[in-house]
Order: sequence, then structure tokens, then C-alpha cells
Amino acid sequence: MKCTRCHARATINLPSHNAAFCRACFLLYFCRQVERTITKEKMFTRDERVLVAVSGGKDSLALWDVLITQGYQTEGLYLDLGIDAYSSLSRQKAEHFARLHHVPLRIVPLAEEAVSVPVAARFTQRPPCAACGKMKRYFFDRYAQEGGFTVLATGHNLDDEAARLLANVLHWQMEYLAREKPVLHPTHPKFVRKVRPLYRMSELETAAYAFLRGIDYVIDECPHSHGASQLFYKEILNRIEAHMPGTKLTFVQEFLRSAQSLFVAPDGSPPQECESCGMPAFAPLCSFCRLMHEVERKRRQNRDQSDTDSLPS
Amino acid sequence: MKCTRCHARATINLPSHNAAFCRACFLLYFCRQVERTITKEKMFTRDERVLVAVSGGKDSLALWDVLITQGYQTEGLYLDLGIDAYSSLSRQKAEHFARLHHVPLRIVPLAEEAVSVPVAARFTQRPPCAACGKMKRYFFDRYAQEGGFTVLATGHNLDDEAARLLANVLHWQMEYLAREKPVLHPTHPKFVRKVRPLYRMSELETAAYAFLRGIDYVIDECPHSHGASQLFYKEILNRIEAHMPGTKLTFVQEFLRSAQSLFVAPDGSPPQECESCGMPAFAPLCSFCRLMHEVERKRRQNRDQSDTDSLPS
Repeated sequence: MKCTRCHARATINLPSHNAAFCRACFLLYFCRQVERTITKEKMFTRDERVLVAVSGGKDSLALWDVLITQGYQTEGLYLDLGIDAYSSLSRQKAEHFARLHHVPLRIVPLAEEAVSVPVAARFTQRPPCAACGKMKRYFFDRYAQEGGFTVLATGHNLDDEAARLLANVLHWQMEYLAREKPVLHPTHPKFVRKVRPLYRMSELETAAYAFLRGIDYVIDECPHSHGASQLFYKEILNRIEAHMPGTKLTFVQEFLRSAQSLFVAPDGSPPQECESCGMPAFAPLCSFCRLMHEVERKRRQNRDQSDTDSLPS
Repeated sequence: MKCTRCHARATINLPSHNAAFCRACFLLYFCRQVERTITKEKMFTRDERVLVAVSGGKDSLALWDVLITQGYQTEGLYLDLGIDAYSSLSRQKAEHFARLHHVPLRIVPLAEEAVSVPVAARFTQRPPCAACGKMKRYFFDRYAQEGGFTVLATGHNLDDEAARLLANVLHWQMEYLAREKPVLHPTHPKFVRKVRPLYRMSELETAAYAFLRGIDYVIDECPHSHGASQLFYKEILNRIEAHMPGTKLTFVQEFLRSAQSLFVAPDGSPPQECESCGMPAFAPLCSFCRLMHEVERKRRQNRDQSDTDSLPS
């Protein structure tokens, strides 16, 4: 198999693009594709400071790597979710990457700033992913705002986008479909523009990029993701892709090109400021503060219960 | 496992409805569901004569059976596609059903009225399913019109609808999505209203109905359907359904309830009458007549070629 671009021996085959590349041409192709996405979708310019949400996994580190090599001003934001060995290992990977590339990385340990994901899940008796999502969204916006960033970039890849789109389409989640865009503009001055520069790059491509660039990333998935429906949708899409290469990209791209604008989010009142923390909120308290209050209430109940239990009868 | 309705021993389990039924209650449930669809979607009334497109398979015979038992005025229309043993067997099943229920059945042998599907495919060098679809649409409209019917019912079930919807959504086929409805109203006086009363009943349910009612149907699929993409999409949807029972129905129902109206067919000029056959056409010739002309031209070319080949050199 020969490189489609330079005819040297190819190292990676991309059936969805009907192409194959050698190492150098693949890295060039990858960077150009990401650059094209950033420019075409008007995600950000080289004059802006970009906050990169880094998990220590292949996607976010590949994204950060591309942005650094392409000369963007970046800073990493790592949320330590407090998920035992997974969090400590992924934190190490993020720190290692930042040191190696001499780029700033802000670490936010949730256990100190709020509560860890497992504790939030235990006290609210809801799936860990629900609490994790709420806290991520909150701290992304808060630290972007505090750090004077206008844009936050996440490493969601094509497989993530396609899986989310499939889930939303199978149930026709109209509000979610209305918000399914690679660039989300803020609806409040304390919200930040959110962009997904890798949304056209497949998981295979970002993994290949990370591998070929020698990026040291955490390979294990978050232990809470096992059995998560997103993995199931990804598996389904992989079967479709194997049968009809290019379908994932068509599914996402054609949605954005032809269908997305048909789905309109209902006109709600604009967010107010949370009575407790001052961040934007669609209720008197923002959803993060509601989560924190719920955890606090359950903690108190548990304490009262154990005090009652220890009284002499 | 007990019947959800009468608590007798259940013979069929329907995880997608979180229900199980004995034979009698299942047949009642099936007929009521179909009746509800016909009424709710204003498909037709008992005052109308309904032309039922019958293939000899479980779906169309189950549909015909329900319509007869529910007291609708029906007539069957069987197109003999000329696909060897498959066609002769399925024709026998359709004829047997009509005789048994004393209902009229019109047989249209394509090989005599036009050309058989294999011949059309051979001469046009296109997939048999393309020619078959064109000819079916033509004869359905023509015989409905000639017989004074206002409505044609087909046996498409939930699995057919979901597979078609998935295919159209994966590629965001906007025009097809605009026409994806269980009732299609005619856009020309020579077109007929087309309805799909089984669109909410799964393949499992129609098969169970046919089996429990003792309907003798052709079990084999059309030999040309092997490897067809619809079967692939059905397999994909079955995997999703096994993981999340009820998803197929939600996918189709929510599409129709929330999303379908967003997709609007482009305003084209209304159909004119075909210069050759007088049926509605979106070009000087209708697509059936174009197909026939193409077959005729290729046939002539082949004859001329063989005449030339047989000339003494």
C-alpha cells in the first residue's frame, strides 16, 4: 500500500477517505484537516487565548498537540475527577505533556473545589456520568471566565459526535439536536464559546496521530464508561462504517450541512445569575449548586442518622 | 409468563411493549393496533374499496387478513415479478389465501404486461430492485385507477419503516425524509392514496399474527434481497432493539410526531401526463415508460449485434 500523497510506503489506511498515508503525510493531513475545521467554522484565531480541556486521553492531547504545533496560544485545563487510579494516571499524563511542551496547565481537583465524582454519585444516587457532566460544564465555564478566555476547546472526535447524533436521532431529542454543533456560542457573558476542532477526525485518526507523534496518553477508558450507552452507539456505528466506509462522516457532516438548522431550540428566557455562585443559571440556583446542595443535604441526613443510631436506646 | 390482559399462559412476549399475550389476546391486540392506526391516521373508512398489494409474504397477507376480519372492502393485487420459483410460489400463496377467504385477487404477470424483473435488470444493467420498484409503483397506481380504487394499502411493517428511516437519516436524504409518512396523498388525480396500516407493528408481531392465524405464506425472501442494504439496516436495528427494547417504535413514532414536518419536499412542478401511457410523469415520459424504452433499445442493439455477428465475414 502506497501513500496517496507522496507514494512512499503507507503506514495508515483510511478507507473512509479512500486514501492511505505515510507517517509524515498523515501528520500533515491531520493538521490541515483540523486547521481547516477551525478556520471554516470560525472557531478561533491565533489572536485568541484558547483554553483546552485536557483529560489525559488521546483525543484531548492530540488536539492540544495540533494547536501548539499550529502556533495557537493555548492553556490546558485538567479537572481531577477523583476517580481513583484512573484520575491519578490521567493527571500524570496531562502534567507530563504540559512540562514536555512548556505549556501552562491548570489543575482543578474536584475533591477540594467541590466533591469528587464518586462521592457526588454516591450521595445523589444518580449515575456518576450525570454528576461528572454537570461539574465539568460548570468548571469549564468558571475557569475560562476567571482566566479571561473567550473560547474552550474539547477533544470530541467524529466517533463521539456520530454516537451522540445517533442517540439523539433514534429518540428524536429535538432540543439536543438543536444544540448539536461544533461551535456553540455563549448565551450569557459568563458562558464561553465551546468548540470541537476534532469533530471531523475519527477515533482511529486521532489515535494514529497520538501514536505517530509519540504522545504518552492514558489508554484505559474511565471505569464508569463501561456499559455506557455511548460505547454501544459507537460499536453500532463501527459496524455500519465497516460495511459502508465513510458513513460516520457523511452522517455528521450532512446533518450539519442540511438538517441541523431545521431543529430550533425553544425560545426560553435567557439565563439569570445563580443566587449562590453568580454563574449563569436557568433556575434560582445553577445546576452545579443544586447538585452541591443535594450532596450536602444527603451528607447531613447520613450524619444525623448515624448520630441517632449511636444514641443509647 | 402470563398474558398481560387475561392472565392465561402467554404465548408471545413483547419486550418493546413490556407485555406478553396469550393467542386470543395477541390477535385482539394486533387487530386493535392496526385499526387504531387506520383510524388515527385517517387512512380509509369502511365505505372505501381498498386495494391491497399482496406479495404472498407474511406482512401483506397478515394485513389483508386483518382488513377482512375488521370488515373492510378489499381486493388483492398481486404482481407476478417473474422471479422463477420465488414468484410462482408466492403467487400460489396469494391465490390460496384469496380462494380461502372468498376475496377477489387481481394477478398482473409483469412478463406479459411489461417485462419480468430479471429481464429488465439484465437489459438495463441496473440492480433488479431498482426496476422492480419502478414497475411496482407504476402498476399499483395504474390498477388502482383502472379499478376505481382511491386507496392502496401495502404491508410495510415497523422494521421496514425503521430501516428506511435509518438509511435516510444516516445520509440525511432530505427529500426522502419529507415523503416518509404512513399516508401519502396523491399529487395527481391518476395517483392513488398510499397507506401502510402495519407501520407500527414489528416484523416479529406480523410473523406471530400470520403464524397464530394459520396463514400460509411464502417464507423465503426474494432471492434478489440477499445482501440488500435494507437487510443490513434491519440487522443493525435488531441489535439496538435487543439492547434497548422499544427503540424501533420510538424512532419511527417520534420522527412522525416531532421531526417529519420539518422536512419539506422541494416545490416542484406538478406531474404532467406521460406522452406514451398517459399516467402521471415528472418528465415527458414517466419513469416506467423510460425503463420500457431502455429495455426495448438494448434488446434491439443485442439483436442487431447478433445479426452482425452471424453475417459471413
